[in-house]
Amino acid sequence: LPNFKFILAYDGTGLVGWQRQASGVSVQGLLEEVLGALDGRPVAVAGAGRTDAGVHALGQVASAWLDRDIGGAQLVRALNARLPPAVRVLEAIETAAIFHPRFDARSKTYRYRIWNDRVMSPFERAYAWHVAVPLLDVEAMSAAAALVRGHHDFAAFQAAGTRAATTERVMFASAFLADRAPASAVRPALITYEICGSGFLRCMVRNIVGTLVEVGRGKRRPRWVSDVLASRDRGAAGQTAPAAGLFLVRVEYEQALVGPAELAAER
Amino acid sequence: LPNFKFILAYDGTGLVGWQRQASGVSVQGLLEEVLGALDGRPVAVAGAGRTDAGVHALGQVASAWLDRDIGGAQLVRALNARLPPAVRVLEAIETAAIFHPRFDARSKTYRYRIWNDRVMSPFERAYAWHVAVPLLDVEAMSAAAALVRGHHDFAAFQAAGTRAATTERVMFASAFLADRAPASAVRPALITYEICGSGFLRCMVRNIVGTLVEVGRGKRRPRWVSDVLASRDRGAAGQTAPAAGLFLVRVEYEQALVGPAELAAER
Repeated sequence: LPNFKFILAYDGTGLVGWQRQASGVSVQGLLEEVLGALDGRPVAVAGAGRTDAGVHALGQVASAWLDRDIGGAQLVRALNARLPPAVRVLEAIETAAIFHPRFDARSKTYRYRIWNDRVMSPFERAYAWHVAVPLLDVEAMSAAAALVRGHHDFAAFQAAGTRAATTERVMFASAFLADRAPASAVRPALITYEICGSGFLRCMVRNIVGTLVEVGRGKRRPRWVSDVLASRDRGAAGQTAPAAGLFLVRVEYEQALVGPAELAAER
Repeated sequence: LPNFKFILAYDGTGLVGWQRQASGVSVQGLLEEVLGALDGRPVAVAGAGRTDAGVHALGQVASAWLDRDIGGAQLVRALNARLPPAVRVLEAIETAAIFHPRFDARSKTYRYRIWNDRVMSPFERAYAWHVAVPLLDVEAMSAAAALVRGHHDFAAFQAAGTRAATTERVMFASAFLADRAPASAVRPALITYEICGSGFLRCMVRNIVGTLVEVGRGKRRPRWVSDVLASRDRGAAGQTAPAAGLFLVRVEYEQALVGPAELAAER
């Protein structure tokens, strides 16, 4: 059977997350339903990252074995015609038989958006965390964000009640994005954080962001983040930032696992 | 009675537009309700631009006479606590007694967003027009957009069935915004158009955009826009672009009508 790799974008508002649940609408559930109907038999879909309820994706990666021999562009059209508009298939590519979206991922990039203004934008309600006051100290937050880079034990940032086999991960990047708006005397309300790592524990990005915001509020010094990491204690970190601000941006793989169509696209 | 000027942002999705209607939720209706409750008597609210159903605003301007002597920041908080999150009061400033948001407007700026990609972004469903194919010729559209600048009779771009006292208006700017995304080999899917003018006829921006997209599709030459203007015939222009892509960005006034707080903010 040919193995297909899918790249997906979804608005997580109102969804129970990536993973199929006993009740509620999940992205995995929607895809398995639609692919099963297309293929005329039950289809199992694997995903790269288990995004939680309300978390969004710009480039989630999934895979499934399909019986039907169907071209990539045609498959994209057929799936999008059947999926709700909140979930879109951006690409469908036949890939290596051994490809698995989670086990083969080399790194994942997440983005977190904060709206730091007295009044929340009506357009950001479902896509950012509203931190009304004070004006966050982005310079201090940037210094704190840099301390997360590298090889660490992230046990302090793991959701309470979960336990991964190992809590060590490597972060390749952790930074606030420079303002890309046109030059303006007014400080923009939108603050964007990006983190790229070898893997993430449950709620890890949201717990890191909650901790960085404590620094941004001036309640803690940037170096406190290193103390939190060293503590390996969830109780030492800041609050869990809301799901709505979080986006899974992309998942990166080894070149050997990239399909021919993708190699052509990368040029 | 003190005259208050309000700056508002709203997500027009699901609203019947600015103007109070016999049924449905309007921005004017919401404001009159909330201000009336605050002031303890019926309050009439005037607006700068009558945005249609589904049209958004980043900086709509409104005004009302209030009996209660209430500070600007306190008024913003009180209104936002009572309004739905889709409608936000960004500023409330006591202004000149003679100020009227529509009659005194010197110019208005509208933005129109087009998502030009095979697959619609799940995050742009309510905020852009999905033009799936072909890839629009933005250079030709820019040449066509420039022909709208200046003093013209815009009768050809007025909604069918409406009739303004005069259909002559002056457009100060009409252009597609340069891509502000980071350098990338991939052409961005989002195309943004901005137009600033002395005033606008009903559906005028959406009819201009529909006409520019005809040029972008390669069906017409840019100079066709001048023929459409000269015709003064609505039937000569392109289709009306969907409401969801349209944003009222800001309304400009003479300095003399700007309140002291605003002058301070402009520095």
